[in-house]
Amino acid sequence: MSKSAISPTRQEDYAQWYQAVIKAADLAEHAPVRGCMIMKPWGYAIWEQMQKQLDERFKKQGHQNIYLPMFIPLSYFQKEADHVSGFAKECAVVTHHQLKNDPEKGLVPSGELDEPLVVRPTSEPLFGEVFKSWIHSYRDLPMCLNQWANVVRWEMRTRLFLRTSEFLWQEGHTAHATSEEAQEMVQKMLSTYQWFAEEVLSIPVFAGEKTEYERFGGAKNTYTIEAMMQDGKALQAATSHYFGQNFSQAFDVTFQSENNELTHVYNTSWGITTRMIGALIMAHGDDDGLRLTPEIAPYQVVILPIHHKEKDPSLEKYIGQIETLVSKLAFNERPIRVFVDNRDLKGGEKAWSWYKKGVPIRIEVGMREFADEKLSLSLRTNTYRDRVTLSIEDLSKIPSLLEEVQTKLYDQAKAFQSQSVVQLGSQKEIEAYFSQSGFKGFVKGYFGASSAQEADWCKANGISVRCILPNEKKGPCILTGKEAPLVIFARAY
Amino acid sequence: MSKSAISPTRQEDYAQWYQAVIKAADLAEHAPVRGCMIMKPWGYAIWEQMQKQLDERFKKQGHQNIYLPMFIPLSYFQKEADHVSGFAKECAVVTHHQLKNDPEKGLVPSGELDEPLVVRPTSEPLFGEVFKSWIHSYRDLPMCLNQWANVVRWEMRTRLFLRTSEFLWQEGHTAHATSEEAQEMVQKMLSTYQWFAEEVLSIPVFAGEKTEYERFGGAKNTYTIEAMMQDGKALQAATSHYFGQNFSQAFDVTFQSENNELTHVYNTSWGITTRMIGALIMAHGDDDGLRLTPEIAPYQVVILPIHHKEKDPSLEKYIGQIETLVSKLAFNERPIRVFVDNRDLKGGEKAWSWYKKGVPIRIEVGMREFADEKLSLSLRTNTYRDRVTLSIEDLSKIPSLLEEVQTKLYDQAKAFQSQSVVQLGSQKEIEAYFSQSGFKGFVKGYFGASSAQEADWCKANGISVRCILPNEKKGPCILTGKEAPLVIFARAY
Repeated sequence: MSKSAISPTRQEDYAQWYQAVIKAADLAEHAPVRGCMIMKPWGYAIWEQMQKQLDERFKKQGHQNIYLPMFIPLSYFQKEADHVSGFAKECAVVTHHQLKNDPEKGLVPSGELDEPLVVRPTSEPLFGEVFKSWIHSYRDLPMCLNQWANVVRWEMRTRLFLRTSEFLWQEGHTAHATSEEAQEMVQKMLSTYQWFAEEVLSIPVFAGEKTEYERFGGAKNTYTIEAMMQDGKALQAATSHYFGQNFSQAFDVTFQSENNELTHVYNTSWGITTRMIGALIMAHGDDDGLRLTPEIAPYQVVILPIHHKEKDPSLEKYIGQIETLVSKLAFNERPIRVFVDNRDLKGGEKAWSWYKKGVPIRIEVGMREFADEKLSLSLRTNTYRDRVTLSIEDLSKIPSLLEEVQTKLYDQAKAFQSQSVVQLGSQKEIEAYFSQSGFKGFVKGYFGASSAQEADWCKANGISVRCILPNEKKGPCILTGKEAPLVIFARAY
Repeated sequence: MSKSAISPTRQEDYAQWYQAVIKAADLAEHAPVRGCMIMKPWGYAIWEQMQKQLDERFKKQGHQNIYLPMFIPLSYFQKEADHVSGFAKECAVVTHHQLKNDPEKGLVPSGELDEPLVVRPTSEPLFGEVFKSWIHSYRDLPMCLNQWANVVRWEMRTRLFLRTSEFLWQEGHTAHATSEEAQEMVQKMLSTYQWFAEEVLSIPVFAGEKTEYERFGGAKNTYTIEAMMQDGKALQAATSHYFGQNFSQAFDVTFQSENNELTHVYNTSWGITTRMIGALIMAHGDDDGLRLTPEIAPYQVVILPIHHKEKDPSLEKYIGQIETLVSKLAFNERPIRVFVDNRDLKGGEKAWSWYKKGVPIRIEVGMREFADEKLSLSLRTNTYRDRVTLSIEDLSKIPSLLEEVQTKLYDQAKAFQSQSVVQLGSQKEIEAYFSQSGFKGFVKGYFGASSAQEADWCKANGISVRCILPNEKKGPCILTGKEAPLVIFARAY
């Protein structure tokens, strides 16, 4: 058996494998700043592709981007009680606006603020203020805003992409004239995230509502998409919240209706974060590194010139020709993103680096291929040594090969997910399932207990309710026996 | 004389006119958070276009984007003495990572940090760490990184876009094996900014070096592009810094050279901010609002359907046809950005709103135009009432009309700049020039005095040295009489 690029393998130690893939694919590293992360060029380029796909979609759906301050005065943060209790334990607080030189201690904070500022963990309070000031009549509604920003939630135990004190995200916030319209928006954005996970990232998800216990602070309903990682654990990939009039009452956001009545608006918010890169790694990565879908790969095709010692100008010209041909092709109506790696490295080293980085298609061209007017092509979804020799004309097949990679990654993840979900009927069976050694996936079961019961029982078993499955028949709750909806239980990131 | 949309006019009160344009064009507003700004959809969309143009250019030039934490531990901030002294007076300091409920005071900061964190005013210290950890041998050089981020420089007196405590920017940081190569990069980025100002924004600039007194903290040389606003004041639009080995020595960033010697790298940094939107307003705005160049306008063409009372489906169909035709056209190889404004507003109100927002081309279509298979087109660079009636076939002229607007804005700004610069030979003449009542522009003069003299004299006259003009003959310094380079003096934002 050939040795894999990543050590340990997924089987040997999944958590360590995850760190090793991030290192091998050169995605990110821990910052010298506690709890924070440095996104390296390849990791950040993936985030840029995510932004591009989502931003285009949001704009088509009528959302407009704005930018709000990252500081929230303590008093604003306090207006919605449930909201603040959800974040108070984990936020960065600015208390001074200067540094001064202390003869003994060196630089120390100086210029204490009258009111401390919280670095945004999310921006509901500021959007509350914005809506209050921008909305006057029904003609201003719906107001559909979005912001790309950094947020801070202080974390004691951090993991790259999955849990860092500062992370990047988008937060959409909308205001509507009616509850129905707001709830439609919540579902629409949930579907948008499902589309993004499944069609762009090839990650199948369960979409459904959170239980009251798992709800976002201040929300009336929280919806989520839950992805299965290869260790069977769940990852909450995105959320969409319905606030009803909770925030509009707290921030007094009203509008004049068509009948001239003053009414509070109905709000939603929805977000997705750099955590999605963690999901991508853990859903598709293998023991040789990252595997990217063509939709999200910063480069969909890399071309690797394999020179003999000295660079050969005629080979370079041939490579240029291939590059031009590839960049004129399109995948899903966008020009193919192609990169020629001219680094001064050995061919094998170069090829391995892109295999580990997960680039869907590699094209290698050495003097032999050049002489034959051929090229060697390999797909990331095949093994490293699996290459086919093609002629220049065959380059036209690249779009369909990319489609093949996109679909194959989805099919593999979907097959894995399907075989890793069981439905269990009783508390005992579920407890036994999660206490077994070895692999644990998702469990479907009926659940309708109180938040207190959910907290106790889930904590005792190291699991959580990931979401309530929609459109399923009800059955007897595994804790109370009362009629209850079907939910997913899992260990989770 | 017809009344203008903006009151007061530029003549009446330039500072108030500036605020009024921002309001009329709906670009931004003061946040409820002290010193911070809310970028509204149209203002943020302009920033997105700026990012897109610059980011594409940076990537073509070989720079890669990364993302670093926004928090910098106090100790890192302290490593380069000149650097810290430049920022210590104006930074936000995080000292706590929790909030707790005090029975008397309500929420108060809790969980004091061992080491305070400074919210980045710029990221040289963290890039120092990054270079130290990523650079090993000459093969890793040059390392050309860039970051799009928010930064904080605490400000007591704020003005939208020009001076806010938090602002958005890009900061490029590069490391090189030789001083020559680093200095070439500094010049290359200065030229890139000049291209951006002149070709994209149609704002003519003076590019040159800053005096020692005006240099960025920690830099060996600082270069700048200086734009003239319509009140004759200068606005520093972008800067490019050469650090030599100052930061690499402070952060011990070395590399193994080809001869196996351990050497410190040479660094540069360069940045441009949301301030550029302020420059755009003040360079091109008129008494009816904003005027945008086609290169930067979020929409280059807006189409305004003028319905009679009820919406007419056949008019809507005709509008759709025009939209399709326009969106198939290209301006500078990019598809034209077109928007149909279907808001339920009166025709005049709609047209005025886009005139104030500065959209280059407006197309109005009412029932009469529809009946004649015509349309009414107007350019933002003409007066509001100046319209031409065109046929559908004439839409093909739009790219050249956009080119006309792009050039006209540049020519107007250039003519204004040229007639507003005088060269003066003596201290007295310059003092007299800047103490006159009424308009004051840029003054060219020979200057080579010490930093202390520069500080005193400039402060006394309310001016500053904006930049040293390159490639000019030397002459006698207006303060010392010694041979000195030609510089630009001006009042500045």
